[in-house]
Amino acid sequence: MALVVQKFGGSSVADPAKLQIAASRACAEFESGNSVVVVVSAMGDRTDELIELARRLHAEPDPREMDMLMAVGEQMSIALMAIAIHARGFEAVSLTGAQAGIHTDNVSSKAKIKQIDTTRLRRELESGRIVIVAGFQGVDVEDNITTLGRGGSDTTAIALAAALKADRCDIFTDVDGIYTTDPRMVPEARRIDRIDYDEMLELASLGARVMQSRSVEIAKRFSVPFRVRPGGKDSEGTLVTDTEEMEQVDVRGVALEENEAKVTIRDVPDSPGAAARIFGAIAREHVNVDIIVQNVSAQGITDLSFTVRQDDLPAARRACADVIRDLGCGQLEVDESIAKISIVGVGMKNHTGVAEAMFSVLAENGVNIKMISTSEIRISVVIDASQGRTSLEAVHSVFGLGQGEEEDNVKEQ
Amino acid sequence: MALVVQKFGGSSVADPAKLQIAASRACAEFESGNSVVVVVSAMGDRTDELIELARRLHAEPDPREMDMLMAVGEQMSIALMAIAIHARGFEAVSLTGAQAGIHTDNVSSKAKIKQIDTTRLRRELESGRIVIVAGFQGVDVEDNITTLGRGGSDTTAIALAAALKADRCDIFTDVDGIYTTDPRMVPEARRIDRIDYDEMLELASLGARVMQSRSVEIAKRFSVPFRVRPGGKDSEGTLVTDTEEMEQVDVRGVALEENEAKVTIRDVPDSPGAAARIFGAIAREHVNVDIIVQNVSAQGITDLSFTVRQDDLPAARRACADVIRDLGCGQLEVDESIAKISIVGVGMKNHTGVAEAMFSVLAENGVNIKMISTSEIRISVVIDASQGRTSLEAVHSVFGLGQGEEEDNVKEQ
Repeated sequence: MALVVQKFGGSSVADPAKLQIAASRACAEFESGNSVVVVVSAMGDRTDELIELARRLHAEPDPREMDMLMAVGEQMSIALMAIAIHARGFEAVSLTGAQAGIHTDNVSSKAKIKQIDTTRLRRELESGRIVIVAGFQGVDVEDNITTLGRGGSDTTAIALAAALKADRCDIFTDVDGIYTTDPRMVPEARRIDRIDYDEMLELASLGARVMQSRSVEIAKRFSVPFRVRPGGKDSEGTLVTDTEEMEQVDVRGVALEENEAKVTIRDVPDSPGAAARIFGAIAREHVNVDIIVQNVSAQGITDLSFTVRQDDLPAARRACADVIRDLGCGQLEVDESIAKISIVGVGMKNHTGVAEAMFSVLAENGVNIKMISTSEIRISVVIDASQGRTSLEAVHSVFGLGQGEEEDNVKEQ
Repeated sequence: MALVVQKFGGSSVADPAKLQIAASRACAEFESGNSVVVVVSAMGDRTDELIELARRLHAEPDPREMDMLMAVGEQMSIALMAIAIHARGFEAVSLTGAQAGIHTDNVSSKAKIKQIDTTRLRRELESGRIVIVAGFQGVDVEDNITTLGRGGSDTTAIALAAALKADRCDIFTDVDGIYTTDPRMVPEARRIDRIDYDEMLELASLGARVMQSRSVEIAKRFSVPFRVRPGGKDSEGTLVTDTEEMEQVDVRGVALEENEAKVTIRDVPDSPGAAARIFGAIAREHVNVDIIVQNVSAQGITDLSFTVRQDDLPAARRACADVIRDLGCGQLEVDESIAKISIVGVGMKNHTGVAEAMFSVLAENGVNIKMISTSEIRISVVIDASQGRTSLEAVHSVFGLGQGEEEDNVKEQ
């Protein structure tokens, strides 16, 4: 008998009909002889509705009270899920985050799980019940309800799987799984059967936002393999696990980011602390900087380039204005028509020639590379926005990621 | 510095505008130097919406899960109330029933409060916060969320007032207070300034359903005086307290019940256990019997009459059918066109002539009395439905309950 954690997101429990589909999945798993823990999110857009109500009362509602309010969404879902499972003739009990023993720190709206006391969970499982746990929420040491922030229900599912040493953790979503690239852009994109935690993390941060990075990080830390599966149909989806378990490939997936802008500050004094002051000012405006490139210094000055989301451009400009004047830098140039292409794969660590293959195919397609940034398992290049889509297709194809190309791409079992 | 408990019902927190009015009441009370505990119900018809969702999944949803679901309504209200109070510049914190230390038995959907642990409540009050508590809910010994059943938020408010030894408890409603009779039927009806717990209980059970009897019983048991006040305007409403504090009158109020029916069973054997069998069968159908009258026995048989709500008539007939046959009774007669008029007043205990005054005025108006039932502080008569309204006016007037008639009615201070 295995212990299985199933997580259903908001769209999978948005209405009674969808709730029943989710309930039947839980029952089927239980009927096959397994212990089942179900983690659910709030129904559809309930959460937005509650936020709207609060904002009508206060421009900046207190985080502790927002947690009290937000936790309501999942509490509704767990009760209704239990009732839907009862209707199918199975025993089930719903537990709030607090009842499920999910203890967090006291940072309202983005609490971190500190410890899970599984006493009640295990007791309920042992009595033959399907146990339904409210995602996204916990309780602090003073008995206040806390919420885990974005992606919180995934975090709950994975943390529970870790604490209970679950045999399996299925994250049901409205996508089929993880793809070699966005199938809306490249129809040849293929669903990936298995992907490494680190690859998933790089793809998540690159815009394949099936899950928040945080949940994947917890899965990695506690070695919890999990599946990203479609809620609406039968599919194994994508298994996210560690590298040992999977076929080795150089490149697992390719991502295109189209909503970035490149900022260049000319003539930055090449002295200690200049970069720190610039990026400190940007951070204070809550702007995330992506790629940073600094050229080789000539005559004590250098050029500094970085990319930010287009949305953040006004804030970034604002942040830079004072610092540029204080430091005596040159002008600030902005290029809004850029795209970023990244290839990701743990196999890169051990194989040379991956970067060369990427750069070559871009050159063959007449694409000029404006910036390059790499990690151990990722290579990103910034190019002209107009060449984004064709470059994506070319790169995706050169690494043999399209449908029917699996075999070529496998290097070793 | 006094400690004040304020309770706002569903209609007083139905939307952000109403919530803000309630919040400003709490803030005004706090600003006048008092400690304030606010108890709130679920917003407007949120509860019905949740019940409907559950019923779409299961014809008879599990009570424990319904409690989990229902508790959501109050949890939303407390968070929003706290946020509304913050917007006015005051400190406030919301507490669920569990957080407020409201411990109940484990009877889902109609739990009884066993004990209130006021540790956290007192700590929050001492730190200068307005404390907002979810009405209607508590927690059982196994940490399951329970709800207190109908009128539960009033019960929460009064139980908290008792546990905290509050100086005052204000129940804000959508009525002005308690009236000498229903002002929609008798325009001369007057708001009562002070009423005894027992009078309130008799009037509640007679259809003046401002509050559930249970809350009043708790107030009586723990000697918690409380006010029934209008949420929408400035008025002291009606103070519900014990007799010593109030002016003595014979009759405090008059109530008319129009939706009852009279059932007569002819020729019931006058033997021990016959009545028990009849009313046992009726109770098993969950029918509440109101007045019961048994005539003097003649030749070993008697006639038995009782009244029930018209809604319950089919169930009462069903319940009687078998027993009548088994006991060998005569036929069952039903009179659906009856009305019941009751006068209520603790002063009746000590004053004779009250019944005579009531019967006389009815006689003067040509009203035939079909049944009579009395308690220490109440006299009820069943009459023909067509004479209900005129009889109510006549009785209301004969006891000097109309506007401008206060002085005549006061017997001693």
